[in-house]
This record gives sequence, C-alpha cells and structure tokens, in this order.
Amino acid sequence: MKCTILTVGTEILFGSITNTNSVYLSRRLNELGIDVMYHMSCGDNPVRLKEMLAYAYEDCDMVITTGGLGPTEDDLTKENIAGFFGEKNVCFEEQLAVLKKHFPDYMPPNNIKQAYFPEHAVILKNPNGTAPGFFLEKGGRFIASLPGPPSEMTPMFENELRPILASMQDSVLYFRNIKTMGIGESQLEMELLDLIDAQTDPTLATYASSFETTLRIASKRSTLEEAQAAVDEMLAKVRERVGQYIYSEDGEDIKKVVFDMLMEKGLTLSSCESCTGGAFAKAFTDFPGSSAIFDRSLVTYSWDAKMQELGVRKETLEEYGAESAEVAEEMVAGLRAVSGSDICISVTGFAGPTGGTQDRPVGTFFIGLAYGGELKSFRFETRRPTRERVRAYAVTEMFRTIYRELKN
Amino acid sequence: MKCTILTVGTEILFGSITNTNSVYLSRRLNELGIDVMYHMSCGDNPVRLKEMLAYAYEDCDMVITTGGLGPTEDDLTKENIAGFFGEKNVCFEEQLAVLKKHFPDYMPPNNIKQAYFPEHAVILKNPNGTAPGFFLEKGGRFIASLPGPPSEMTPMFENELRPILASMQDSVLYFRNIKTMGIGESQLEMELLDLIDAQTDPTLATYASSFETTLRIASKRSTLEEAQAAVDEMLAKVRERVGQYIYSEDGEDIKKVVFDMLMEKGLTLSSCESCTGGAFAKAFTDFPGSSAIFDRSLVTYSWDAKMQELGVRKETLEEYGAESAEVAEEMVAGLRAVSGSDICISVTGFAGPTGGTQDRPVGTFFIGLAYGGELKSFRFETRRPTRERVRAYAVTEMFRTIYRELKN
Repeated sequence: MKCTILTVGTEILFGSITNTNSVYLSRRLNELGIDVMYHMSCGDNPVRLKEMLAYAYEDCDMVITTGGLGPTEDDLTKENIAGFFGEKNVCFEEQLAVLKKHFPDYMPPNNIKQAYFPEHAVILKNPNGTAPGFFLEKGGRFIASLPGPPSEMTPMFENELRPILASMQDSVLYFRNIKTMGIGESQLEMELLDLIDAQTDPTLATYASSFETTLRIASKRSTLEEAQAAVDEMLAKVRERVGQYIYSEDGEDIKKVVFDMLMEKGLTLSSCESCTGGAFAKAFTDFPGSSAIFDRSLVTYSWDAKMQELGVRKETLEEYGAESAEVAEEMVAGLRAVSGSDICISVTGFAGPTGGTQDRPVGTFFIGLAYGGELKSFRFETRRPTRERVRAYAVTEMFRTIYRELKN
Repeated sequence: MKCTILTVGTEILFGSITNTNSVYLSRRLNELGIDVMYHMSCGDNPVRLKEMLAYAYEDCDMVITTGGLGPTEDDLTKENIAGFFGEKNVCFEEQLAVLKKHFPDYMPPNNIKQAYFPEHAVILKNPNGTAPGFFLEKGGRFIASLPGPPSEMTPMFENELRPILASMQDSVLYFRNIKTMGIGESQLEMELLDLIDAQTDPTLATYASSFETTLRIASKRSTLEEAQAAVDEMLAKVRERVGQYIYSEDGEDIKKVVFDMLMEKGLTLSSCESCTGGAFAKAFTDFPGSSAIFDRSLVTYSWDAKMQELGVRKETLEEYGAESAEVAEEMVAGLRAVSGSDICISVTGFAGPTGGTQDRPVGTFFIGLAYGGELKSFRFETRRPTRERVRAYAVTEMFRTIYRELKN
C-alpha cells in the first residue's frame, strides 16, 4: 500500500512545534511494509485539507492524518474528511457517554464536537485524552485520523490502528534491531560491507543515534516464520563478525538492559551525581518497579553538598577540583558507606558551557563505581560537548559502566 | 506572499531523520510576514517533485526547497526545478572554479553536477559545504533551493536568502506567545470567544500542550511598530479577562521563568524527591549557570533513604505512608536543616502503575515547601495518570509552587 501522512495544524506551519508525528508514523508504517510516499502539512482550513486529500489519493490508497480532532472551532479535520468522502458527520452515542464521563460535573459545550464522526467511521479509542480517532474505508480509499498530541497519537496508533493495518498487508515484515556500543557507524558498515552490498532480503541497514549504532536486519516474506528464519540466519553471521560490540539483539536500549540485569540478579543500586544533576536517577526511575532496586541518588551539586552528604574531603576538592577521578572515588566511597547498596555509582565532570581546565576540557567527566568490594573510576570525554550532550552521554556511560561490570 | 516549504529526501519518508528544516524555515518565514501555507516532503523522484511544485503554485507564489542538491545520482532537485520552469541546466563557470578549490588534488567526477544550475538562477553561496543553493524568479513565481544538512541550510538562509526575501515584503509579522497555568484550552477559549470570533488582525489562537495552554497573538502590518502596537493592545484586553492565569507574556516556560526569578532574587534552592526520582533536579540543572542557585537534591526513593538523609520518622512513614502530606513536610523540614537553602521543596506520591490507596489513587502526590520561615504542603492529583505523566506533572507543579510562592 502507498500512504500519505497528512499532519494538520497551523502550529506546524508557524514552526511552533516539530513534526515528530510524521517521523514516528513513517518509521512504523515502513516497518509494516507500507510505502510512505509523501508528508504533507496544512492548516485547519476547509478548502485546503480537502484539496490535499484529493492530491494524496492520486498516487496513494491510504492517508493517515494527525491533528485537528479537538473541541475548538478551528479543529476541522473530521468535518473536512466527512465532506471529502461525501459522508454526514453524526453523533456517536457511545462516544458521547464516554465524553460525559470525562467531565462529570460540567462539560464545556464545545466538547460535544468530539462525539461526532463521519457516519461510516470506526472509532479508535483514546484512553489518554478526550478526542477519539477513527478510520474509514470507502471506494478503495482508506483514511485514518489520529489526534495531534504525541502522547495520545502514539498509543492510539500502536493499540488501535497498527493491528488493523497489519491485517491488511499480504506480506509480513519481521525485523530485529541489533544494538551495539563501542563501535561507530562507518566502522560497523566496513565490517559488514559485503553482507550489506549483497543484500536483497534480508536487508541490513545501520543507523547512528545518540552515542551508539544500531543495525537493523529486516525480511519481508509471505509468512512470519520464513521472515524470522531469514533474519536469524543473517544475525548469526553478524554475530560472528561484530558480536563483541552487541549488547542487545532485540532493540532494548542500554538502560532497560541494565535494569533487567539488576532485577534478575536482585541487586540494589544507588547513585550520586554532580554534572548530570539527577538525570541518571530520573532515567532509572522511569522504569515501573524500579523501587525494588533503586535506593537513592544524592545529587550533590555544590561542594558543601559533596562534603556533607558524601564525606568528600575539602582537601581533595581543593587539590584536584570537584571534576576529578579523586572526587568521583570519594563520592562513591561515601555513598557506599551511607547507602549500603550492592552497586554504587558516581559521576562528576564539566557539563559546560563554561568551566573546564587545560587537561580536562568541557565534556570531560569521571565515573566512580563501587561493586563487590572493589572501587574504581573511569575517565570519559564527550565529542562536540554541548551541555545537553555531555549530560546525556554521561548518563549513557553510567549505564554502560554498570553493564560492563556485571558482564565480567 | 504565500509559501510552500518542500523538503526532499527519502530519509524523511523513512522516518530516519526529523524534519527540523521545515520548523526552522517556518519560523523565520512567518517572522518575515510570509504565510507558510503547506509543508510537503517527497523522495528524489523526477515525476513527484514536479507534481508537487505544480500543486504548490496553485495556491502559492513562492516555494522553498531543501535537499537533493548533492553530487550523487539520486540528487535531482535542480534538474527537476529546471524542467518545471522550462529552463536549461547549464554550467556556471564561477561555481566550477569554487568547486575545484574544494578538491585541489582530485575531484570525484560526479561532483561536477554541483556547478550546474537552471540558466536564469542566481547562486546562493555555501561556505559550509560543496553544494551551493540558488533562487529563480519566472512568470510571477519565486523558488529558492537550499541544501538539506541544517548546518549548511541555516547559514545559507540567514546570510544569502533572508535579506532577499526581506526586501520583497511589504508587511511585517509580530507575535507573542502568552503562557498560562491553571486554565484548560476550552475554558480559555470560552473566556476569549468574542475576541477570537471577531479576529482579523491581530489573530488569537490557543494551543494545549503538556499541562498548560498557550495563547498566540499575532499581527501583520506594514511596520513592526504598528504590528507591535496592535498585539499589545489586544494583550491588554486579554490580560483584563484572564490575567490571573498568565505567567509569561513572551513564551518562556515555567521552568525558565522560575529559574530567572531565583537568579534575579539571588535565592538558593534544594530539593528532595521521591516519586519524581531526580526529574526535578535534572530539569533545573538543564539550565547553564544553575550551579549558582542549586545546592543539592536528595532523591530518597526508599524508606531508609528518607529516614537517613532527611530524618523522616519511622512512625510517620508507618502511620501515614510514604506518599502523604505528613512525609512531604518532614522531608522538606529535614532538607532545610541539612542544606540551609533559601527555598526547599519536596515531593512524594504514587507515580504508578501500581500502588495507591483508596483516598490516594495513583497520580496523587504531595509537595512540601519551606521558604522564609514557613513550611507548607499541597496535594495534587494527575488526570490520566500514566507513570510518565504523573512524574512530568509533579515536576511542573513543583516549579509552579515555587512560582506562586515567590509571586505572593
């Protein structure tokens, strides 16, 4: 099938928001074997949206829209689609009931719009907001409308729309994302060049993302079993070449891999953070159930906090500076003494934009680790060290440090 | 003028990259008073790009493209544009000379493409790469082509194209984003309905984003002064109606507003976090220079950590549970004692997905605040309480709590 993604909203045309919906949907539709031909965006305008639909259906048999399903006057997507398909917009009583539950006391009158849909529409439920989506098939044309906010759009796509689209495909795509660390994209490509060049099915493709390279092995066959077998055979070849860099064969990121390792081994964890300012603890406690593992993080931003909370010595701070291996080690020693967690990890460094010394420029950080009676520290440097990148990279390396330690 | 932004590249349609060029150009074009009517994206394909141009020029008199200017076989933008405008693609000798300077020893033969342009094109220089851009005016239609990589596109737009576009405009757009808290999108719209309905210029539009509503007031006039005066006049009316909900009149988010307030007043801040797991500290220390304000955050996830680090009493935990106003207050009292910061803030609650009690379901959290000798706590509940939403909402309310306290 050939698809156009049509995102609706003047905030897109003003440049007020980044169109992440098109990125997300493109990725997921391609994975289903659906060709994404065009992205289009227009405002909530009765004429333009219908014109864009007409244009899209010249080449495509499917359009997916996001946005314009809300309660306000300028949310016109449903009206426009109904008009384009020659449908009446009618009240869906069930949806009205759902809507009334959202507003037990008083429903602003404009909200009633959210119970109206093209008469032959099938509703896509929205447990994360008040605007349901829908899809409609008519005259060989398929359209689905999803809400604009990604927090509503994504789960609706995954839980409601994706299974319907998957059932419409006559071939099955199966893929695995192989996650690596410690190898760049071009080096990975060189190691696999003959496999990549010879590819027809399965296909191999490398993607560089923040601080790591992912290899995607994909096969499209008539059954899932055939596709899986083809992917697994290729994966075995890849493993022989670059197995030492692989940390996940099913697309899990390093954070989740480490979380699962700790959960499985029943180990407890505490952290103390300077330059990351709580970002490590935040990342770890994003996982439901993390309270079984995670005891505390002491975010000691000032010298006073480092001395009071972790027993870092003033002399060490004065002699080596707060952003040093010595302070990283004293931090983690102090944390181990106070928390008693099985694994203790510390981080300190120069996140920038100012600071840094000649031999420790902005982007340099130190990680301390205490585990199984041992206490070590490691030095890292960040390429292109913006503040955001340094902090994100430091969090990544904290997880990797734990991973390496537990693997050995 | 009415403009379409046309971004070219299969990597966009695969979802491999986020289309930040459209965001950037939209913002800058709108600021120039150019109406951005459509965003479109297609692959490097000889038929589709010309079709899209034809479609765009039905409504617009200007198209700006990015991408497809490189040396490889699938870079076809210039050929397609020349074809659409009935122009020959000819070698620009000056560009050939520039290009040869880029490759002093050996120029891969496919690079010569980069010296060819539609015959009536005007070159836009590219000091940051090998692919120059160009613009062309013909038959009342304007087109400009910029390279795809943002590091080349952005400076070319700013230094080469923007001055040309500015000289073509006879009006200027001015806008302000008014940020509110404590009022939903539909209620805000109801309060301003007559103003919104009567709008011609300035225009008013509401946008809901995570936990807040933004109002955009925009005016397009022949001079910046007139546009500013019109927006400010409308803003005065808006202030009269809903002033109590406004926390920023220039689009700053609550985190930055609070950060600036603390910086200006020279106050220090510490936090202690349970359910947010470091997310508050992470958000605050995202700001460069936060070390002048932020002392520490004690992320006390376990009971032990709360007792040891903050002196929360075991009896309080047993009697009220860790997720209670009582514990939020003891946490912040302990933090004040150990940190001595001017403002101390605590948070504890049920982030879910499991947990909660009958009268404190998942999504309930408590914020404790110690400031100026006073110690208070507040209770909050999260609508549609996914773990991610609860944690993000709790962080937002921590910033809002500080804001309210400092405003009074």
